Amino acid sequence: MATQADITAMRRAIVLAARGLGSTSPNPVVGCVVLDASGHQVGEGWHQRAGGPHAEIHALREAGVLARGGTAYVTLEPCNHTGRTGPCAEALLEAGISRVFYAVGDPNPQATGGADTLRAAGAEVFGGLLADEAEAGNIAWLTSVRLGRPHVTWKYAATLDGRIAAADGTSRWITSAESRADVHRLRAEADAVVVGSGTARTDDPHLAVRDIEEAVQPLRVVVDTEATAVKPGARILDDAAPTLIAVAEDAETPLTDVVRLPRADRGLSVPALLDALHERGVRSVLLEGGPTLAGAFVAAGAVDKVVGYLAPVLLGAGPNALADAGITTIADALRLHVTETVRIGPDLRITATPVTNKER
Amino acid sequence: MATQADITAMRRAIVLAARGLGSTSPNPVVGCVVLDASGHQVGEGWHQRAGGPHAEIHALREAGVLARGGTAYVTLEPCNHTGRTGPCAEALLEAGISRVFYAVGDPNPQATGGADTLRAAGAEVFGGLLADEAEAGNIAWLTSVRLGRPHVTWKYAATLDGRIAAADGTSRWITSAESRADVHRLRAEADAVVVGSGTARTDDPHLAVRDIEEAVQPLRVVVDTEATAVKPGARILDDAAPTLIAVAEDAETPLTDVVRLPRADRGLSVPALLDALHERGVRSVLLEGGPTLAGAFVAAGAVDKVVGYLAPVLLGAGPNALADAGITTIADALRLHVTETVRIGPDLRITATPVTNKER
Repeated sequence: MATQADITAMRRAIVLAARGLGSTSPNPVVGCVVLDASGHQVGEGWHQRAGGPHAEIHALREAGVLARGGTAYVTLEPCNHTGRTGPCAEALLEAGISRVFYAVGDPNPQATGGADTLRAAGAEVFGGLLADEAEAGNIAWLTSVRLGRPHVTWKYAATLDGRIAAADGTSRWITSAESRADVHRLRAEADAVVVGSGTARTDDPHLAVRDIEEAVQPLRVVVDTEATAVKPGARILDDAAPTLIAVAEDAETPLTDVVRLPRADRGLSVPALLDALHERGVRSVLLEGGPTLAGAFVAAGAVDKVVGYLAPVLLGAGPNALADAGITTIADALRLHVTETVRIGPDLRITATPVTNKER
Repeated sequence: MATQADITAMRRAIVLAARGLGSTSPNPVVGCVVLDASGHQVGEGWHQRAGGPHAEIHALREAGVLARGGTAYVTLEPCNHTGRTGPCAEALLEAGISRVFYAVGDPNPQATGGADTLRAAGAEVFGGLLADEAEAGNIAWLTSVRLGRPHVTWKYAATLDGRIAAADGTSRWITSAESRADVHRLRAEADAVVVGSGTARTDDPHLAVRDIEEAVQPLRVVVDTEATAVKPGARILDDAAPTLIAVAEDAETPLTDVVRLPRADRGLSVPALLDALHERGVRSVLLEGGPTLAGAFVAAGAVDKVVGYLAPVLLGAGPNALADAGITTIADALRLHVTETVRIGPDLRITATPVTNKER
């Protein structure tokens, strides 16, 4: 049904959508391309920030009267509801669009129904074009809608033998400058960056995005159960980005930007943390460590994607990238699919996602 | 100087040479291609086993009189000495070859001088064509000549977080059937396969090559310092391949195929072990573990290549792939170059070589 031209236009829309990663939450990223009646591209756009125009509106504005009788390609089913902006299904009809291809259906019960509205008004509507690619690009938001919690990417940087530091704790430059720059891109695409008390204590990390133009800074989050790791004056408390310290309900702290959460067996409850972040509009979390917190997330089944930066270095001693995740025997191991392997400078970046029950 | 035809012929010779990996020791692998005077290929061959004809002889036999006025492409400088076979430089001249391209100069003082002999007899001789590729293909033998010890490849199989087994010791199928088959190829290319007492005790490994036609079985070696790990009846003592047990000079053992070596701080002296293997004609060693022995090899500076099979699995606990290598701080880490990354079934195979002092 879809022609090569349809596929090309949708792929362009997917590329456009990705430009919004990190700045649209709690909304999805969406891209849109408009072709005129003879198949020439006359408009494109993407959703840039929550509260701003949707992708369709940007593309329709660019197309103007040339949209009449044309085709719109949207990575997500056009919305049907009036939120901070009007419904896109209506806008497409008003612009005279006669055909609409969308990739992924809108799972949001408030917004769904756009396709039906368009069809009822006489437009031709085709769903599912490049659905897998579009879903991958919007996975954080889709996960958050489906699971009611933010999508979590666990990022680690380790030697080939899985160490994140030497025996004496030194870890400077395990991975390369190129890998570290790449991590800033991941941060820019995430709504929140999360570390544990060990990392806060050892590294006094800053966690803001550097060297990426127009990046929206993520919420910086430290899981500091006992409220002892982040001291006044810590780098993370500067005004480069918002910061939230998660502490136990009974912890004493002089800090003000804290959220109090129930304790788990060790540390804080991961589901409670994710709930608290979701309430604050966080749809994607970049979990940057350390090993203890990563282990707690794995144990809670709350890792949706793994990005490992492997440096071609051997140490033979030192802390591991991942600590106790409650897995004691091989049958209980968390099994993943490798989705991508890329050289980043001298390092390797490996991206993997958990094998779902369905696939097992 | 070299034309595309010269490069094509030499590349073919390098491919042919690789067929000898694992069966030519203590000789190098060598490939040879002969083109006639008008540039058509009329002969090819490779060195198949020590004591058998050299690559040039195979190729010249195939070419017959068509070699007259032709060009020979050899991955290693033609030998100049009479060993178990006659000097190849003479054979090339007798066959009427008028031009010789070789890739790598012969570093063996007994055999070198072939190029000079050819030139003195009036042949055109060009060295260095595709030298890097040919050297990579012959790296085990070249390393053994240069360092006076076998080339060592450390192979490990681990999870993404660097574990070789779960906390309870279970490790079955961490890596895939495809990866395990690939390891048999590595074994077939090696002269010896080496494991430590921990692996011998835990896994009762067999270590012979399976499912590879015409593979020459490697020498199976267990470093069993106290002579307590390999018991009569162990699988490694069957007659599928030769076996050697390395024990301490003062260890008591009922086994007969043992070599007695001096102790080191922990375990046996790695240099003494490599000396003993070199004396037995071993030019390439596949070190298969476990972590303690691998640590001793790294500490001894005796790892020339690393092949890691990384399974997309997370454990968060369990033994690491590499144990104490005497590295306590990041500045002393063993730094490598990644030379190749390949998917093997669901796993990744990462190949890396130590960064030399020159490169640092």
